[in-house]
Amino acid sequence: MPFEILSELKSPKQLRDLDDQQQNQLASEIREALLTIVSDRAAHFASNLGVVELCIALHSVFDFSKDRLIWDTGHQVYPHKLVTGRFPEFQSIRTRGGLMGYPNPVESDYDLFVTGHAGSSVSTVLGLKTADDLLFSDEDRKSVAVIGDGALPSGIVFEAMNNAAGLNKDLLVVLNDNKMGICPRVGGVASYLDKARVAPFYNGLKRDVSWLLNKLPVVGEPVEHMLGQFKEALKTFFHGGMLFEEMGFRYIGPVDGHDIQSLQRYLEMVKEVKGPVLLHVFTEKGYGFEPAQKDPVKFHTPAPFCRDENNEIVPVSADKSVAYTNIAADAIHQAMQADEKVCVLTAAMCAGNKLNKIRDEFPDRFFDTGICEGHAVAFAGGMAKSGMRPIVDIYSTFLQRSFDQIFQEVALQNLPVVFCMDRAGLCGPDGPTHHGVFDNSYMRIFPNMVVMAPGDELDVPLMLDFALSIDSPSSIRYPKTNAETVERSVAPIEMGKSEVMSWGEDGNILACGVLLPRAIEAAEKLRGEGLDVGVVNARFVKPVDEDVIRRAIETGFVITIEENAICGGFGSAVLEAANRMGEPTDRIKVLAIPDEFVEHGPRGELLADLGLDAAGLCKAAHELAGSSSDASTQELVK
Amino acid sequence: MPFEILSELKSPKQLRDLDDQQQNQLASEIREALLTIVSDRAAHFASNLGVVELCIALHSVFDFSKDRLIWDTGHQVYPHKLVTGRFPEFQSIRTRGGLMGYPNPVESDYDLFVTGHAGSSVSTVLGLKTADDLLFSDEDRKSVAVIGDGALPSGIVFEAMNNAAGLNKDLLVVLNDNKMGICPRVGGVASYLDKARVAPFYNGLKRDVSWLLNKLPVVGEPVEHMLGQFKEALKTFFHGGMLFEEMGFRYIGPVDGHDIQSLQRYLEMVKEVKGPVLLHVFTEKGYGFEPAQKDPVKFHTPAPFCRDENNEIVPVSADKSVAYTNIAADAIHQAMQADEKVCVLTAAMCAGNKLNKIRDEFPDRFFDTGICEGHAVAFAGGMAKSGMRPIVDIYSTFLQRSFDQIFQEVALQNLPVVFCMDRAGLCGPDGPTHHGVFDNSYMRIFPNMVVMAPGDELDVPLMLDFALSIDSPSSIRYPKTNAETVERSVAPIEMGKSEVMSWGEDGNILACGVLLPRAIEAAEKLRGEGLDVGVVNARFVKPVDEDVIRRAIETGFVITIEENAICGGFGSAVLEAANRMGEPTDRIKVLAIPDEFVEHGPRGELLADLGLDAAGLCKAAHELAGSSSDASTQELVK
Repeated sequence: MPFEILSELKSPKQLRDLDDQQQNQLASEIREALLTIVSDRAAHFASNLGVVELCIALHSVFDFSKDRLIWDTGHQVYPHKLVTGRFPEFQSIRTRGGLMGYPNPVESDYDLFVTGHAGSSVSTVLGLKTADDLLFSDEDRKSVAVIGDGALPSGIVFEAMNNAAGLNKDLLVVLNDNKMGICPRVGGVASYLDKARVAPFYNGLKRDVSWLLNKLPVVGEPVEHMLGQFKEALKTFFHGGMLFEEMGFRYIGPVDGHDIQSLQRYLEMVKEVKGPVLLHVFTEKGYGFEPAQKDPVKFHTPAPFCRDENNEIVPVSADKSVAYTNIAADAIHQAMQADEKVCVLTAAMCAGNKLNKIRDEFPDRFFDTGICEGHAVAFAGGMAKSGMRPIVDIYSTFLQRSFDQIFQEVALQNLPVVFCMDRAGLCGPDGPTHHGVFDNSYMRIFPNMVVMAPGDELDVPLMLDFALSIDSPSSIRYPKTNAETVERSVAPIEMGKSEVMSWGEDGNILACGVLLPRAIEAAEKLRGEGLDVGVVNARFVKPVDEDVIRRAIETGFVITIEENAICGGFGSAVLEAANRMGEPTDRIKVLAIPDEFVEHGPRGELLADLGLDAAGLCKAAHELAGSSSDASTQELVK
Repeated sequence: MPFEILSELKSPKQLRDLDDQQQNQLASEIREALLTIVSDRAAHFASNLGVVELCIALHSVFDFSKDRLIWDTGHQVYPHKLVTGRFPEFQSIRTRGGLMGYPNPVESDYDLFVTGHAGSSVSTVLGLKTADDLLFSDEDRKSVAVIGDGALPSGIVFEAMNNAAGLNKDLLVVLNDNKMGICPRVGGVASYLDKARVAPFYNGLKRDVSWLLNKLPVVGEPVEHMLGQFKEALKTFFHGGMLFEEMGFRYIGPVDGHDIQSLQRYLEMVKEVKGPVLLHVFTEKGYGFEPAQKDPVKFHTPAPFCRDENNEIVPVSADKSVAYTNIAADAIHQAMQADEKVCVLTAAMCAGNKLNKIRDEFPDRFFDTGICEGHAVAFAGGMAKSGMRPIVDIYSTFLQRSFDQIFQEVALQNLPVVFCMDRAGLCGPDGPTHHGVFDNSYMRIFPNMVVMAPGDELDVPLMLDFALSIDSPSSIRYPKTNAETVERSVAPIEMGKSEVMSWGEDGNILACGVLLPRAIEAAEKLRGEGLDVGVVNARFVKPVDEDVIRRAIETGFVITIEENAICGGFGSAVLEAANRMGEPTDRIKVLAIPDEFVEHGPRGELLADLGLDAAGLCKAAHELAGSSSDASTQELVK
């Protein structure tokens, strides 16, 4: 029976009844369950394979029905879902209406926070622990954060550790050290962790260290006093972890993260330690599945694959479409070839943003800061001040982490930093933590910022060139989806000017961003239905094209469409502009993402449900034209 | 002659020609200049007194006409302004049109970035250095960041140090360790730095350490290899700074920050060191002025004072008005008395937000995270999840640093965290880094968030109670100014409901926030001029009061007023609502802060200039009413 133990596991409390052999078998079954998933969909894979044993050990030592567990970043939560009673619906993960690929309190009380952005686990666990101590002082609720070495350099982790040490809370931070973020890790802390791997203690030399400590000379004051400190320093050094010890954490480890029983012994021990503890666990991304162990970057979220007759990995489908991400990466590459002042910064999104080629070809002008978006933006501000032309290439949702640096280090200084915001709009199966649906709203808040959204792939390189030619900061957003081309003689990019694709005497659609082709489809359909509707490729969220807005209002109805939250987005900018110009707005309809968090699911389906497609546009047009009959609308929506 | 040297100092290059005695005299003259300033205005004081010698030493060792210098946070930049040729206009500092109280590239090429928010200096300096190495590879431009121990725990510092170590850039970070942020420092790093003060090396025991090192036993492999590491560890430990060494920085110090010549020797030395270096400098906030040394929190930004005949400090004016800050602190205090689940978190704004009494009375439910806003918000999210009712009490502009935690840890989880945003609106003499003019726009972006703005002081405790009674996250904004009361029978707070103060048949002013009294003044004036204008205390930015908006539009003209940026603020929310309801917007006028960064100056003057006062409202009303003659408008504006 393939899932002998897993299929009987209703609660993690049952884990205590399993013997060592059964626990190890469970680990194998979990791996098997993970493998079946990724054979038919893109899903986080290598990171989940790496924490199977850690997950079993944690749930067998702690009781997370009252103790607290946060999986930082959250994409490694599949084994956790499997051991907390979600095996029956596991096949639905990352599909619409199914389990989320991240923790989700709606699914289970064992999931406390929806996570997805890295680094905040230590803060939330400190909050949980502090509140539990106040509210449930008669219980001894334990609190555990599991954080990867990729998330560790995020500034908020340091802030939280500093605070936890100051408060001296009993807190367990498990450092899941697999030598990787999404991409190979970088920076001083990475080298530091690498050193821990060859520390004598880990290699079994503890005995020698004890001997050495006993050999220390014994002398009088003041050296004697110093010796106390000296021994402490020495002990800590040989145990590794001085960095954490200096920050006020007790450092324990490293320990083999693929040995359940060893993990359990360590966890039982640290459970009783007072004050904040960091347990350093070594795991291997992709453990137990050779191809993923060999190439964990590729197998972070691999495309669906299966194994052929030779047991080789073959992709399930060979989608040859080109994504906006590639278009943008090519445009960046070209800009870097053309101008030595152009450089690119990313925050652990080298692979995600297809920057490998640029990294290899221009190592001096490629900067990966690790998961440190705030720093990346301030770093870019400094480079721009010295005369470089930095491009910050970060997912829309993660760029939120730099909001204050965009404000102070870029917009306020009016420095020409270019923000390429990938994954803007609905991100599909990742869900609400990854949807990049706020950038139209938050970018246009700032004075000096020029905010752009390409209508198709042809706009992307033009906008990048334009952004690199102006003296202000600017941003360009595009989604995680295949690029589309609107055949036309492309108008050059001019500041604040939209591109009129066609003009309609009944009404016009101002399409902001890559939904432009949907607008064109809708206009065609509407023309067939007797409505003369034109389409404008808005291009600029800020400054908006007042001339075209005025003309459109004076012509007929106006529909704005964007893949951004309705509060404060492009539609709102159009309303503001109309109001500023004294133009009426009652025949303007704003189509955007409603004021709610959107669940995971295929992007196209989600957009259709929200009316952000050709059918939605047609429906809105008929309503505005006052010509919609129930029947025709029904048909269109269908 | 009181300013013998200072008055002749046109450029920092002249510092090299001064002998030791003259440099010391210059330090005294700078202190005298600082003292004269703060006797007639509120200005940053203690921090500037503390860096006089450091500033002279830096400018005499480096040439910042090509080398790079960033003063982190920037409020300690007065001595820097004095030695870079700005003594003649120094008396204008923090006054309208005068020198800014922070670095400002418009004033001098020696000021590279307008700073004000803490922690980003290491990032920007790394950017400057990296770009300089690419663009000016034949020059050896040095880069220096001066950062206080208060800013050090900010996550972005850690991110930047990690990256700098990875890139191994020649970079000097001067840690200006005065044992204080704005408030006494907290956390693990603080204790760590305290230990450095008693480290043997600092106390002259280096000799003993060398002796000890020579006493180490010499033995064969593998211990021999270990001894190398051991000695390194030991050396570093006794030199202090292991934390920084572990992060990949060379640690040097500590050094006395009030000894110019000693500082110069150290700076000359570290100038030649390759790779990133941290120089640990001990300074004393308020050094050279006894009252400030004794109470550096009070003397961070003291109210104007002078010395009486007994040389005692006496305030210049005894303003007995109560500030919104006090009203809010009292409301928080009351809420904490009433409910044990209520707790308060701040980020080094204990004094600024008048929380000292709360800290002393409820030490278990008061949390100061230090300058770590991101962590503070995620921490609050954790506490709310466990059942506490956390209030996050942070200045509006600094809360920008938590944008992503507000998104993920609060709004997405729909946790009832209350944000009290002090210093919302124009902050006066601090200028654009401190104006809190974006929060109406950025808070309402997020689903689930309830966004409030009290119309006067009576609204503050009511809104706090309301916020603590609902299950969603919420925010309350108020400015740094004296509280005003609008006499009335105050309506209770209801979700999304505004308070109609009076209804006008010609038009109505929807006043969002503390400009409500200006709206009432304007309405009175307008009624005297024959326009029947009513006033609504909007109270909610989100959800807006659709009923009142509809009624107002259907009645006559509508003016919205708010102390927030015009892009995406309350006015924008009203336009969105009107559009959503199919109501016309052409008789709506949005008054808000224009889309530009506003300079420093007295809040009242700035607001008047931007038309955000009674005169501005009257002008707008007359324009909308179509009844304005040039003459009457002129008079009103006057």
